[in-house]
Amino acid sequence: MGNYLAEINGLDDFKKVKFNKLNELAAEIREFLIENIALTGGHLASNLGTVELAMALHYYLNSPQDKIIWDVGHQAYTHKILTGRRDCFNSLRQKNGISGYPKCGESPHDIMGVGHSSTSISAACGLALAKKQLQAKGDIYAVIGDGSLTGGMAFEALNHAGDIQADINVILNDNEMSIAGNVGALSNYLSNLRSDPKFKRAKEDIEFLINKIPRIGSTVSNTVSRVKDALKYSFIQGVLFEEFGFKYLGPIDGHNIEELIKYFKEAEDFSGPVLLHVVTKKGKGYLPAEENPDKFHGVGPFNIEDGSTKKRKDKASYSQVFGESLSRLAAEDDKIVGVTAAMPAGTGMNIFAEKYPERLYDVGIAEQHAVTMSTGLAKGGLKAVCAIYSTFLQRAYDQVIHDVAIQNVDLTLALDRAGIVGNDGETHQGVFDFSFLRPIPNLVLMAPKDADQLQDMLYTAVNYQGPAVLRYPRGSVNGNYEPKEFKEIEIGRAEELIAVKAETKLTIIAVGSTVYPAQKAAEILNNNGYQTALIDSRFVKPLDEEMILKAAAGSENILIVEEQVLAGGFSSAILELLNDKELKKPKIKRLGISDQFVTQGEMAEKRAEYDLDGRGILKNALQMLDQNREAKSLWPKKND
Amino acid sequence: MGNYLAEINGLDDFKKVKFNKLNELAAEIREFLIENIALTGGHLASNLGTVELAMALHYYLNSPQDKIIWDVGHQAYTHKILTGRRDCFNSLRQKNGISGYPKCGESPHDIMGVGHSSTSISAACGLALAKKQLQAKGDIYAVIGDGSLTGGMAFEALNHAGDIQADINVILNDNEMSIAGNVGALSNYLSNLRSDPKFKRAKEDIEFLINKIPRIGSTVSNTVSRVKDALKYSFIQGVLFEEFGFKYLGPIDGHNIEELIKYFKEAEDFSGPVLLHVVTKKGKGYLPAEENPDKFHGVGPFNIEDGSTKKRKDKASYSQVFGESLSRLAAEDDKIVGVTAAMPAGTGMNIFAEKYPERLYDVGIAEQHAVTMSTGLAKGGLKAVCAIYSTFLQRAYDQVIHDVAIQNVDLTLALDRAGIVGNDGETHQGVFDFSFLRPIPNLVLMAPKDADQLQDMLYTAVNYQGPAVLRYPRGSVNGNYEPKEFKEIEIGRAEELIAVKAETKLTIIAVGSTVYPAQKAAEILNNNGYQTALIDSRFVKPLDEEMILKAAAGSENILIVEEQVLAGGFSSAILELLNDKELKKPKIKRLGISDQFVTQGEMAEKRAEYDLDGRGILKNALQMLDQNREAKSLWPKKND
Repeated sequence: MGNYLAEINGLDDFKKVKFNKLNELAAEIREFLIENIALTGGHLASNLGTVELAMALHYYLNSPQDKIIWDVGHQAYTHKILTGRRDCFNSLRQKNGISGYPKCGESPHDIMGVGHSSTSISAACGLALAKKQLQAKGDIYAVIGDGSLTGGMAFEALNHAGDIQADINVILNDNEMSIAGNVGALSNYLSNLRSDPKFKRAKEDIEFLINKIPRIGSTVSNTVSRVKDALKYSFIQGVLFEEFGFKYLGPIDGHNIEELIKYFKEAEDFSGPVLLHVVTKKGKGYLPAEENPDKFHGVGPFNIEDGSTKKRKDKASYSQVFGESLSRLAAEDDKIVGVTAAMPAGTGMNIFAEKYPERLYDVGIAEQHAVTMSTGLAKGGLKAVCAIYSTFLQRAYDQVIHDVAIQNVDLTLALDRAGIVGNDGETHQGVFDFSFLRPIPNLVLMAPKDADQLQDMLYTAVNYQGPAVLRYPRGSVNGNYEPKEFKEIEIGRAEELIAVKAETKLTIIAVGSTVYPAQKAAEILNNNGYQTALIDSRFVKPLDEEMILKAAAGSENILIVEEQVLAGGFSSAILELLNDKELKKPKIKRLGISDQFVTQGEMAEKRAEYDLDGRGILKNALQMLDQNREAKSLWPKKND
Repeated sequence: MGNYLAEINGLDDFKKVKFNKLNELAAEIREFLIENIALTGGHLASNLGTVELAMALHYYLNSPQDKIIWDVGHQAYTHKILTGRRDCFNSLRQKNGISGYPKCGESPHDIMGVGHSSTSISAACGLALAKKQLQAKGDIYAVIGDGSLTGGMAFEALNHAGDIQADINVILNDNEMSIAGNVGALSNYLSNLRSDPKFKRAKEDIEFLINKIPRIGSTVSNTVSRVKDALKYSFIQGVLFEEFGFKYLGPIDGHNIEELIKYFKEAEDFSGPVLLHVVTKKGKGYLPAEENPDKFHGVGPFNIEDGSTKKRKDKASYSQVFGESLSRLAAEDDKIVGVTAAMPAGTGMNIFAEKYPERLYDVGIAEQHAVTMSTGLAKGGLKAVCAIYSTFLQRAYDQVIHDVAIQNVDLTLALDRAGIVGNDGETHQGVFDFSFLRPIPNLVLMAPKDADQLQDMLYTAVNYQGPAVLRYPRGSVNGNYEPKEFKEIEIGRAEELIAVKAETKLTIIAVGSTVYPAQKAAEILNNNGYQTALIDSRFVKPLDEEMILKAAAGSENILIVEEQVLAGGFSSAILELLNDKELKKPKIKRLGISDQFVTQGEMAEKRAEYDLDGRGILKNALQMLDQNREAKSLWPKKND
């Protein structure tokens, strides 16, 4: 750690740094970020891009009276460092450590907890209106990337803020990409604004020219006046934002602290909303990240020397299996098309796009549009497969109900990162989807336990004549992955992995990611004389009523396991079924996520915390079967 | 019915009408609409505004090969008339009748089923991409109102369509209002475009002027070229849309069929996306609707002579009670502010706004922004009360999780039109909110049974230190309404309306709108010797565990009643509780909405269909208690 950074334990220390030493501090912060993220993993490229911007904001403003709202929040590490959290970076994104995002409660300087995109202008707007009504003090800044600006919510806020002339400053952090390169007309527009070096010169010449326009008499005098306005108007940059009622300032060099502060001062002259167009470079100062910002957007531990990432387990990820399977299906059926909302690599759609670039539609950060456009693709005769992270589908909930399900459209929704996602924490967990999708009529909802099942379920979903959803976890697949011959699964048919017999004491019903650990637990139980059956439900909707009722009739005990919140999810569906069929009721225990937001940590840690791993399932099973037996004593020593 | 209209039983008939007779037909259609909607109720103003537009589209295009997508769909009556549904208008919005919105299955000409706003450009985009890939034929038109354009989803689609140069025509139906007057910078922008009569003249003069600009030498030659571009650019109308990659055409008189068709032809010259700015008048041709389009947006039966609406029951609506109660609370606490997304009258917020115009924020059709802005208001120190229809909160689901609940923000969400809404049908039912909100940690979720409880719950929600949601039905309150002294309700405390006793055979647990009919049923049962207890749960989250467990212990039979889908809702929460507490399980029956979308019809009809009225509850209770007794025989003869 360098000389300046070592002494900064909060904003007071930071403000004591002399202005002409800020660049040295910036260099130290960059070094600190690279060294730390190389160890912990995290968002590198976006944070290297905002070092000077965060410094300029905090140097000029007085947080938390002045309020800085970081959109998405994956670019706020320097903000965290300057506000007294430097020493926590070794615990970044770890269990009980600091969050990778701004988080209320972690610091009074984190005004908005965040993780999803496009919320900052709305929040700023609300803060500004409250400030006005309460006659409070403080400037309000929202920092939003050009990628986040494609989210419709940001436009709703721009449109409103411009109209009411909300006293906010929106910093458009233009780094020419969301995560994987930007999408949309707006992106082209920003690109034009950026690449206009002659602009200032032209502005100076323009008055001269205007005066050369001759006065030709009254018939055209109105027109002359219009032309003068037009010229003035045309040489205002950022017309689009001006049309929304914002004062546009920029483009501004986002790595020049002096220039940034000069513009912050200029922004103060305007009482209404100001848009400051700040141009930054993702990965700035670390060549491997500058050259490959997509890879270094969110990255695991890496070697600083060459940016190579440490080898993870060699296992395939669900995303990869999805991408490869979709490509194989697409080879046979040219009606198959893919849709992603700015996550081609994250969802494995990049694998599909490599083979079929014309058949992947990346709509940018715009989940609502992604889902409804998919209905349009389907109605137009194609087989649309729209891949979205579970947590981001929450953005398109109404579209799933209103556009997909009510119209019973024949398409596939592939929900990646379903269940516990680990280090991204509360905002990114995909633990609500069973609950919010299950009540929707017409949907088929399934969850694969491994790579084989994912292949078959994707095949099943694509062939099913109606809306089908499959949801699968982040990370490596259970078991092995080999591309296999696709096999259709009968809709709503569960699989009895260990049969219910006369002597069965317990039936475990699992689905998706919990099937493998349940199988492990069931095997141990059976080996120790506790007769245990196991059902892989495969479907959450519709349920295999017949098999579940049979299991309930044949077992004294039922243990239901799902990687999802317990309220309204898979186990709740089974309780409803058993109740409504008025069956003799076995003792039922439900394992899942209790009524709390799942905090950050490694996936395995968090699964263990909720008893969703083999040991946890075994422990709970034993509690039902034999209170005197401890799970620890049964679990094999060298096998986890 | 006039001469021309009487002969139109489909598009073939319509296309036979001579061009110079179309205006006569338009007049007949207007008369037909006014006469029919005066009897059935429906969307009058918006449909009177689009008579010529729908005619021009169908006269010029060949539906369904050419595809017309109506955004929101409350302006598609003429489309329905021309496509063969004229004779069904006496059943408009009635049970088993035709829908008030385009609806797949009703006609091949209804390309997208719809009801919520801002989806049309996304759907058009998908259709256009499918058309391109399949090399299919047909033009694709989306008709979207200026109000719907404020929904962020529409911008996501504009941004994408412009970028990929999707071959779509977007008709911006600019009638200067969404439902209650428009909001937003965009609205101001459109207003400027409209009010520009000198535009065409200026365009002619401009070339003359450009040529007068002297060439002054090489130093400024770049600038001269820029200026010429600038002039050209400035005299292109609709710069904002052009920036999004659309070709802008207009403004166009939306009541002039000839002009409309001329522009449709012009639009064909462009292969990419075209925006046709069509100006129409809401309520056109019927003076009461022209003068008061808000009232005639959605209207019940009315007198044609003067537009007076037939008297409904004199009872207060929940919206009114909400609006008046909020005003009374606001009188005592100047930190209380209201937020609405384009529904001030619908939600009763207009009552609040009459007294406190500075304290209501109408953000336009922008539910996502409304919810997250409310978190900003709350974080800024105000007590935000955001009123949204239950069905439209689906648009802001992620915002409730990500911005409200994770951050545990102290605000109130007031969900109007929760439960069955009646004639608007599938797209508008508010029957999912218990299920999608219950799994979210930190939320308090309650439902009032009548006006008194609504007042107390609103008071409780506003005073509760965290996110509280109350949901209440469309229409008249149960019982009477008098402004009362506010009383705080203990969070999570149910009310035992008829106590559980030793001899209790049945306990009914109801919540919200089902409490009154349950009480009626319980009284009849008690009067006939079936000892029945009744619990008003008041809260869906948290549940009153103690009281419910006591009831379960004391009753052989439990009947749970909710106006909501059965999957994952209120009764599901009780099943979870009873299961997880491992209690001796009574027999439990659940009444609610089964796994299907609720079709249109009167609220009372639909409630009866799902046994959610007094008779239905009585019938189901008797099925549990005494299979030999028929409910009909117990129900009082002259009392419903």
